[in-house]
Amino acid sequence: MSKEITNRSEDYSKWYNDIVKKAELADHSAVRGCMVIKPTGFAIWENMQKQLDKMFKDTGHVNAYFPLFVPKSLFEAEEKNAEGFAKECAVVTHYRLKSNPDDKSKLIVDPNAKLEEELIVRPTSEAIIWNTYRDWINSYRDLPLLINQWANVVRWEMRTRMFLRTAEFLWQEGHTAHATKEEAIEEAKKMQEVYAQFAEEYMAMPVIRGRKSESERFAGADETYTIEALMQDGKALQAGTSHFLGQNFAKAFEVKFTDSDQKEKYVWATSWGVSTRLIGGLIMTHSDDSGLVLPPKLAATQVVIVPIPKPGEEIDEVANNIMAGLKAKGISVKYDQDPKKRPGFKFAEHEMKGIPVRIGIGKRDLEKGVVEVARRDTKEKTSIEVDAVINHVEQLLEDIQNNLFQKALDYRNSHITSVDTFDKFKEVLENKGGFISAHWDGTAETEDEIKKLTKATIRCIPNDAKEEDGKCILSGKPSKCRVLFAKAY
Amino acid sequence: MSKEITNRSEDYSKWYNDIVKKAELADHSAVRGCMVIKPTGFAIWENMQKQLDKMFKDTGHVNAYFPLFVPKSLFEAEEKNAEGFAKECAVVTHYRLKSNPDDKSKLIVDPNAKLEEELIVRPTSEAIIWNTYRDWINSYRDLPLLINQWANVVRWEMRTRMFLRTAEFLWQEGHTAHATKEEAIEEAKKMQEVYAQFAEEYMAMPVIRGRKSESERFAGADETYTIEALMQDGKALQAGTSHFLGQNFAKAFEVKFTDSDQKEKYVWATSWGVSTRLIGGLIMTHSDDSGLVLPPKLAATQVVIVPIPKPGEEIDEVANNIMAGLKAKGISVKYDQDPKKRPGFKFAEHEMKGIPVRIGIGKRDLEKGVVEVARRDTKEKTSIEVDAVINHVEQLLEDIQNNLFQKALDYRNSHITSVDTFDKFKEVLENKGGFISAHWDGTAETEDEIKKLTKATIRCIPNDAKEEDGKCILSGKPSKCRVLFAKAY
Repeated sequence: MSKEITNRSEDYSKWYNDIVKKAELADHSAVRGCMVIKPTGFAIWENMQKQLDKMFKDTGHVNAYFPLFVPKSLFEAEEKNAEGFAKECAVVTHYRLKSNPDDKSKLIVDPNAKLEEELIVRPTSEAIIWNTYRDWINSYRDLPLLINQWANVVRWEMRTRMFLRTAEFLWQEGHTAHATKEEAIEEAKKMQEVYAQFAEEYMAMPVIRGRKSESERFAGADETYTIEALMQDGKALQAGTSHFLGQNFAKAFEVKFTDSDQKEKYVWATSWGVSTRLIGGLIMTHSDDSGLVLPPKLAATQVVIVPIPKPGEEIDEVANNIMAGLKAKGISVKYDQDPKKRPGFKFAEHEMKGIPVRIGIGKRDLEKGVVEVARRDTKEKTSIEVDAVINHVEQLLEDIQNNLFQKALDYRNSHITSVDTFDKFKEVLENKGGFISAHWDGTAETEDEIKKLTKATIRCIPNDAKEEDGKCILSGKPSKCRVLFAKAY
Repeated sequence: MSKEITNRSEDYSKWYNDIVKKAELADHSAVRGCMVIKPTGFAIWENMQKQLDKMFKDTGHVNAYFPLFVPKSLFEAEEKNAEGFAKECAVVTHYRLKSNPDDKSKLIVDPNAKLEEELIVRPTSEAIIWNTYRDWINSYRDLPLLINQWANVVRWEMRTRMFLRTAEFLWQEGHTAHATKEEAIEEAKKMQEVYAQFAEEYMAMPVIRGRKSESERFAGADETYTIEALMQDGKALQAGTSHFLGQNFAKAFEVKFTDSDQKEKYVWATSWGVSTRLIGGLIMTHSDDSGLVLPPKLAATQVVIVPIPKPGEEIDEVANNIMAGLKAKGISVKYDQDPKKRPGFKFAEHEMKGIPVRIGIGKRDLEKGVVEVARRDTKEKTSIEVDAVINHVEQLLEDIQNNLFQKALDYRNSHITSVDTFDKFKEVLENKGGFISAHWDGTAETEDEIKKLTKATIRCIPNDAKEEDGKCILSGKPSKCRVLFAKAY
């Protein structure tokens, strides 16, 4: 922990990478574009999974598991209505290695073990799942089918970044089938709201709920609902999407059901997902120049106790009592007794790793009947009477959670700027960043032109966008509502 | 549920497949050798994971995630000390598809997107993990490193069977690094015991703890500890293995540490894993000719309540009270109110799916103040006073768990046969099955010959094997202890 991290103001991108490395969240691997999620980082993902899984089950979903591989021909079925789908993916062509006859210590791909049909490592599972749903769905009694999968997926990204964009990543993907269009739309919106609540209540990361423009939609979706967050450098992060897929996949994979009126109909579909990218969003929303800052609800260790030893001193008893009291309240706590590290070193280490609350126990303090409680978010330190520590910490964790959200919300709200001219648009984008609320003529051409000129994209048409007559900032053509632009991760 | 399943006595293998299908545990997929784990089957895996994960964490392990792909060259490093490792695996050679120029509706592998080095879909992760551990381990302070991973792995099996042997399967793999040989051996044995306790206490599946003969060891292991279960057809199932890897991987990947004596040393390693194969073992240990039988501790739904309706009748209140009472005790319960299915149909369905306890609520019974409680394992039905139902069911679930274990244990114990001649060996193997306890001269040649002649393999040298002078059943050479043979899955 001796080496410090780069300041945000100096190099935001380097600051991010420093945190990922120094807080021991992830590491590079021997495979290009793939990362290793280290125990500290994975513990955050486990907490996210646990809460999201509960929210999915509370809304009637069950988990299942579908194959990692998708036969190429299934992508061809899908391609008919999803021309835009990315083709950068990992292709399995052979099923055996053998020793190199010229050098027994080397392995070669066995040319006799070529697959008749190539298999694609799933970039997403619509194809394999809808090909399966065909057999599972016959009658309206089989609907709705509400299934989620926790899985790894692979997209061959050329420019990767830890958590934010990696070739392999972990995610969940919900895939639901419904008898009516209305029900499917309701489901897609419901899951957008589940994601938004998770982001705000657990990640303490405020999000804007909206829908994507046609160009930014998932290929194969009739509507894509999104939650968009704002990072501290003024760039937006798409944090989760929920798609209303219409009957596109049902038609591509011939998934029909006999309705209660005895008529055969195509089913209506949704899919929705969030990924380990959320960890990137979490880091960039709250962390500071001293390292990671974690909201208590997702921190694997919420409280750390550090003894400040003097020779012959005995403070373990106080520490153990506090530990027991906190654990009884369901608060996760660690006692860092490592004699090989000095307290100052430990303080810096726990700060770097974002542990929300630190309790320092020293002899002199104990003589006065107090311990020192430090909060990671504001770095405030307070002397608290030993008897009052448990309740104080319980309240403090709640305060930190709320403070992190409020701080992020204030930043976000002060970075939504309404502009009415393209010059002003460019100026705000360049100098202030954040979301820019502007009129747009609704065409893909204008959207594309703005992107080319400024690198800003339409992040979403907010759910709460007011109807308002205006003129498109680029084309001057009439517009009915403002949309949100931003540069994005 | 109208169609019945094959009897075990008629065709055991077909019986197994029927249960997997009719209890809706898994389904075939469009990918050869890969299965879809359906929600009912996946719920069992989730319960297994939850308990195992707790046991791993209670023994000091943390979770992490390593890449799905392993560069071919890392296998070459490993091959040096693991010549025997299977080479049947999925090989990624390209990273892009493109539209077929001759037929835009078809996709072809883009020949310009050939990888410089092929990537192997992990069949197990020792290579990629030990290649990473090299960077993580420098000092004795970094040890022990106790990491587990929940993941999917792929082995290109030619003959597959739902859960028991599939090309892709889900598992956990622990990979630990230690400063001393003794500590690593202790860890490997500890995890064998964790697996054994999980199998017996949660799966109600008795297992024999032992170690593998050299031929049956994991390639690269110095010792493989195993738990071996016995299925109802007299065949053994290897349910989990824990390997002491010596310094083999440390040497292959140059993983050294500076010890407290300032000397540089290679670290000592273990790895250990169980997989979705356990679900196959669970099915075959307890189920009967009416379908799946599940131990209560792993059943997603432990109790189902079925109303036996008459026109105008109202029994929901009783059902809801019972539900609330059971839930308060942490018992999972479902109320099957579906008006489209008759009670008899529901009974058969819940029996097929192995729900441990069924409560039938009928008007006539209610007039007498009782409900009918049926247990799945023995199919016994008892009239229980409404007020006594909650406590009765709580006790009953415990009884069922114990009864299933005892029944499986009795079967297993009555199917361990000691033999002293090869003729007797063949006769028992043919007519009775089960484990055969016999003397073996300790050579791979004899082991191999017995396998060729009978298809029986040495399942393990039991931990509790007594020292006993004897003669090898095949070669007649001297032997110091009996080992367990069986035909196995």
